[in-house]
Amino acid sequence: MKARVTITLKNGVLDPQGKAIHHALEGLGFSGVEDVRAGKVIELDLAEGASEDDVDAMCRKLLANTVIENYAIEMVD
Amino acid sequence: MKARVTITLKNGVLDPQGKAIHHALEGLGFSGVEDVRAGKVIELDLAEGASEDDVDAMCRKLLANTVIENYAIEMVD
Repeated sequence: MKARVTITLKNGVLDPQGKAIHHALEGLGFSGVEDVRAGKVIELDLAEGASEDDVDAMCRKLLANTVIENYAIEMVD
Repeated sequence: MKARVTITLKNGVLDPQGKAIHHALEGLGFSGVEDVRAGKVIELDLAEGASEDDVDAMCRKLLANTVIENYAIEMVD
């Protein structure tokens, strides 16, 4: 069983990585970009019997900094 | 218009970040994890008229290292 966790910064939190990507894209001539937000995706191969609650606990304890980040869990069979 | 680009390492490419996360999860007592792969997600706010081809060019020129990474583009209206 697989789980995919997508972690993104909460709105209003400054995203220097996104700003740097935005600036670089403009430098390469891509003018149609208004904003860029960068985040993480973590793919977990889980043993049988692992549940979404387990993944949620992993997110709260390690994978995401819940003060400044949102996380979304997608269970993939 | 928004685009979401998910960038993951190709199979067979060593993922030290994933290994470190896996090791940390086990240290926290999460035993049901068999493998962990870490990647990036980049959300782009695009001006009207920007197309998926533009985003593909951004991926090939900057966002993804196509030698070791795969990228997937999702256009979100």
